[in-house]
Amino acid sequence: MPKLWNDTIEAHREAVRDATLDATAELVAEHGLTGVKMAQIAAKTGIGRATLYKYFPDVEAILSAWHERRIRAHLAQLAEIRDRDGTAAEHLEKVLGKYAEIQHERARHHDGTELAALLHRGEHVAQAQQHLHALFRDLLTEAAKTGYIRDDVAADELATYCLHALTAAGALPTRAAAHRLATITLDGLRRRS
Amino acid sequence: MPKLWNDTIEAHREAVRDATLDATAELVAEHGLTGVKMAQIAAKTGIGRATLYKYFPDVEAILSAWHERRIRAHLAQLAEIRDRDGTAAEHLEKVLGKYAEIQHERARHHDGTELAALLHRGEHVAQAQQHLHALFRDLLTEAAKTGYIRDDVAADELATYCLHALTAAGALPTRAAAHRLATITLDGLRRRS
Repeated sequence: MPKLWNDTIEAHREAVRDATLDATAELVAEHGLTGVKMAQIAAKTGIGRATLYKYFPDVEAILSAWHERRIRAHLAQLAEIRDRDGTAAEHLEKVLGKYAEIQHERARHHDGTELAALLHRGEHVAQAQQHLHALFRDLLTEAAKTGYIRDDVAADELATYCLHALTAAGALPTRAAAHRLATITLDGLRRRS
Repeated sequence: MPKLWNDTIEAHREAVRDATLDATAELVAEHGLTGVKMAQIAAKTGIGRATLYKYFPDVEAILSAWHERRIRAHLAQLAEIRDRDGTAAEHLEKVLGKYAEIQHERARHHDGTELAALLHRGEHVAQAQQHLHALFRDLLTEAAKTGYIRDDVAADELATYCLHALTAAGALPTRAAAHRLATITLDGLRRRS
């Protein structure tokens, strides 16, 4: 087959795949992680169930792909903030705030079920955690160099502190509370005089 | 049966139960949560397998009881620190340090398996989390009254921050790093001047 035809097929596949994940995302937001069925996903995507099964063997596989895409999008959002013009202090503050928001939003989609635990044990989550950790560590290293944050504790440890502290946003009731959490977390990074 | 005899039987049962949990704790420390079998537990406890099955239906039930006893012991340790003589500031500092130690130790016994996730979904864990949260919230309320920590954020939110931030100790390599984490977490609680 000519290359153009292959490209067309590939683009079509990606479009179906993306539409499936979008539909799944909406259904998950509505019904929670465990309330989503293959028939619903097919109907919402606008494809037949048989077609859906050609792309994904089961709901778990779709949820896993959806979850992976979501994590990748979050990492991209944080990397975008890091790459903007501005000082190390500004980047750090904004990344902390955005990650607190992400954790707050994330809790709305997770219902603490076995499936949520399952998704979080996936290989892609471990990799994403490493990327996140590296992103925070590098930001913290830069901010420590400028004297904006403490330098008495290694950036690696500070990154671990940030990532855990900010997961608290998932247990907080409002977006405003999540932002207060980001401020408190930042205050922990800045040594008391 | 006379009361004394019932008491004796009850005391015996508790002793066997405790010995079983002790043996399980040692086996878990050695083999991890999923590496423990009923036969090993019976042998280490010094009782027959048939007797063990009279107390617990399966490994999961023992692990659940063991986990519950462990959490209760941790809560008791923290409550003991809170009830000592001393200022609100001292109590808070010591409780933060102890909880960081507990989280650091805890990570040595958990291997991130399905069983660990299972244990943590138990009813006793939810209750323990509530007790922990209340203990931290009350300490923080006292410390805020004396002006030792910030009062611009509710004690409830600060407690959520503490509990999440300190779980980072489980990801840190040393006890010293866990203590540094407790200091950073405390610095977050103390508003920057």
